[in-house]
Amino acid sequence: MNHGPVRIGLLGAGVVGGALIELIQREHDTLQARTGLDLRISRVAVSSVGQSRRFSLPPGVLVGDPMAVAIADDVDVVVELIGGLDPAQQLVMAALAAGKPVVTANKELIATAGSSLAAAATAAGVDLLFEAAVGGAIPLVRPLRESLAGERVTRVMGIVNGTTNYVLTRMSEASSSYHDAVAEAQRLGYAERDPTADVEGHDAAAKAAILATLAFGIEVTASDVAREGITDLRQDDVADARRLGYEVKLLALAERLDRPTVPDSGRSGNDPAAHELSHYVSVRVYPAMVPRSHPLAAVRGAHNAVFIEGAAVGELMLYGRGAGGTPTAAAVLGDLIDAAHNRLNRTSSRAHVARRVPLASAAEQKSAFYVSIDVMDRPGVLAAVAGIFGQHCVSIRSMEQIGLGDEARLVFLTHAAREADMATTLKDLEALPAVERVGVLLRVLGDTTREVFGDPRREGRDDPGRSSPDAGRADSGDAHRGA
Amino acid sequence: MNHGPVRIGLLGAGVVGGALIELIQREHDTLQARTGLDLRISRVAVSSVGQSRRFSLPPGVLVGDPMAVAIADDVDVVVELIGGLDPAQQLVMAALAAGKPVVTANKELIATAGSSLAAAATAAGVDLLFEAAVGGAIPLVRPLRESLAGERVTRVMGIVNGTTNYVLTRMSEASSSYHDAVAEAQRLGYAERDPTADVEGHDAAAKAAILATLAFGIEVTASDVAREGITDLRQDDVADARRLGYEVKLLALAERLDRPTVPDSGRSGNDPAAHELSHYVSVRVYPAMVPRSHPLAAVRGAHNAVFIEGAAVGELMLYGRGAGGTPTAAAVLGDLIDAAHNRLNRTSSRAHVARRVPLASAAEQKSAFYVSIDVMDRPGVLAAVAGIFGQHCVSIRSMEQIGLGDEARLVFLTHAAREADMATTLKDLEALPAVERVGVLLRVLGDTTREVFGDPRREGRDDPGRSSPDAGRADSGDAHRGA
Repeated sequence: MNHGPVRIGLLGAGVVGGALIELIQREHDTLQARTGLDLRISRVAVSSVGQSRRFSLPPGVLVGDPMAVAIADDVDVVVELIGGLDPAQQLVMAALAAGKPVVTANKELIATAGSSLAAAATAAGVDLLFEAAVGGAIPLVRPLRESLAGERVTRVMGIVNGTTNYVLTRMSEASSSYHDAVAEAQRLGYAERDPTADVEGHDAAAKAAILATLAFGIEVTASDVAREGITDLRQDDVADARRLGYEVKLLALAERLDRPTVPDSGRSGNDPAAHELSHYVSVRVYPAMVPRSHPLAAVRGAHNAVFIEGAAVGELMLYGRGAGGTPTAAAVLGDLIDAAHNRLNRTSSRAHVARRVPLASAAEQKSAFYVSIDVMDRPGVLAAVAGIFGQHCVSIRSMEQIGLGDEARLVFLTHAAREADMATTLKDLEALPAVERVGVLLRVLGDTTREVFGDPRREGRDDPGRSSPDAGRADSGDAHRGA
Repeated sequence: MNHGPVRIGLLGAGVVGGALIELIQREHDTLQARTGLDLRISRVAVSSVGQSRRFSLPPGVLVGDPMAVAIADDVDVVVELIGGLDPAQQLVMAALAAGKPVVTANKELIATAGSSLAAAATAAGVDLLFEAAVGGAIPLVRPLRESLAGERVTRVMGIVNGTTNYVLTRMSEASSSYHDAVAEAQRLGYAERDPTADVEGHDAAAKAAILATLAFGIEVTASDVAREGITDLRQDDVADARRLGYEVKLLALAERLDRPTVPDSGRSGNDPAAHELSHYVSVRVYPAMVPRSHPLAAVRGAHNAVFIEGAAVGELMLYGRGAGGTPTAAAVLGDLIDAAHNRLNRTSSRAHVARRVPLASAAEQKSAFYVSIDVMDRPGVLAAVAGIFGQHCVSIRSMEQIGLGDEARLVFLTHAAREADMATTLKDLEALPAVERVGVLLRVLGDTTREVFGDPRREGRDDPGRSSPDAGRADSGDAHRGA
């Protein structure tokens, strides 16, 4: 195969852009031998042309005006690595309108404006590829779009934020406090000086929106995603989870529910495919207790993984490095090769039609819950606390009491209950005079490996009701020993 | 999008074929809404047309002559699910020669004749897709071919045989003997009545060959793969591994070595890309000790997973169901949608050029090893045994002695040593009069998660030198307490 060179216009040359330039320069001949493509960095838009850089490019390649690169006649493929919405959105839109395929690693852009950009790409008959926007180097977008094109996906569950996973791993394995673990992550470069976007789940929410769009063909933006972070998590809660056979993980979930969360008559419109999904799909971010036998529990440190469940494929998990300059650049390069091939073949990747549908309401969903409550240790408190669970129809599966001098810590695991009922339970608990603190609410995930090995509880593994020998324990709402 | 129907010619309607027919019939409208494709089962070749089946098809679709289906004018895409080489090879070749894209799940066919079939597909300008041939429902072929097209892959390491992984998991978690675990796998339908192809590593070798071709662009057939099975593995060995912080897994490996295993002057030919790979790539199947902190160690039961290491991507792992009618049919359906789209766009998936190069010799490779040796418990035996390791330059990292009445069991972990040296060590050990049995040789995998968490040994985790309190232990070759 011999074609002319593929001229790349790069917008941004920071950590990922620099790694991409180095990768393309170093592997140029191997890539050409393997793919038939002669990849050339033709134009690079940077904010400061004079700044010294770790890569070297021929004179004139570095320019200051990104719009000139996005629409340049001598650019065949545009790679957007500026990040954020402004000016990335205008630049990508202009490139697509000029008939240029675009590769981007910008999760915020795709999670906010993905739908209008996809429409522009389809109209122009060119690619808009964004493998690097979720899960860094992990092939996620292509498998979800192509390998699973015929699959009825039921749930996508991801550890998509390396910072929080590092923090949670250290809290579990090294018994670090939340603040120490965050400080350590900052020291190692896994967390920003201001970690808000990570620890409050904003980053995960953007990725959840992208995953939901890919898995269900619905238009979801980051702001649609119900989001809970890990800032209130205590080491005690992580240690409890571990003792009970779980790891705490911050999950981004997109799932198809069995029934809609609002009555059927509430729907509007006549699109049957949209109706099929309306109020059935839930997209959320929350910390959860994952059974140790589940593959996601083994995802440690700054790694990412996405667990996909489908009617035909069963369970899949895709695991790898979710961040970092070179891994992210590798994902961009995979897309770049695809876009260059498609351009030569005068074709483009299959567009997905994303429908705007109302999402399922979190309040109506059901889950088993974990919550720990600090109380004053005096008679009657446990009965009062348990009574509040009962008033709201939240059935207690197990309770443990851990004494702390004048105080006691009550740890509850519930049977499946409505989110709305659990929320009012927590609200009423906070109003009880004897309650000093209601801890972070954790959803308890079921064990999906059951069908391969039988019920793990029969084998004495991973039983959430099992307690450690040194913890007092009662098994239902009417017990009130000690408290 | 509105095109004519995509007419599918199916060769074989067993477990996978039947599941594919049901999937396409059940999901027809959803698939059409999502992909624009009207998929129709047009012809199905079966060995017995009159037999009753769980699916129903219009009259005339079931036929007895597979060749007529492979080249039929009214067939747009051929799906080969007969398995084996004869007649599958002739049928696929005929279909490609007739200009029809082919989708197959046949690992034996691809691992034996993949190269000539790929050449025929390229010559005809049509697809030859085989996602389902390795790892069942797991997206592997597409990520390796496309997402990693620009990647310098260094190692691919897979648990690709569900039967042996089920057996190993039961030996580890339920302390089953090898024979009990195999019998259980047979009862549950995870193992054939004759489990030879699985337990002796033939199935894994075919998949290793396919993975090597995808990762390194070299032509490897199943018979090129150095292969060791698990038939001699004892429960003791699996229990030792577990106690030391490892799980035993049957691995299919394709890896790029740092230096060739024969002198450079031994090469022939002038193809620089072939030279770059000649004697550098090792393709093997063997049972190994995987550190518990490694993601592959958490792959339990009949699941499969492939761990990929690359210069830029770092580590990836792709996990899921490696077998079963519906998961395999789901992978076939993904390929089918791809082939149908490409046919409409008059294009085909990028062909990979596979070079025939001599593989690295196993004898020259290095590894850390585990071996257990049953000896008669009398003075001087340990010194004699340790002496043999020393004679062959195999350095002992740790040794434990476990008394068994008149006998003793010696468990050795070595530092990295040449395979050839270890092989002669074992041969000499077998010739020692006091040695009653030399156990199965296990390679000991390093811990790849070290860079994310620091050296786990400093934190007291996963130290192969750590022994249980009830096992006698010596730390070097000159110890001979008791033996």
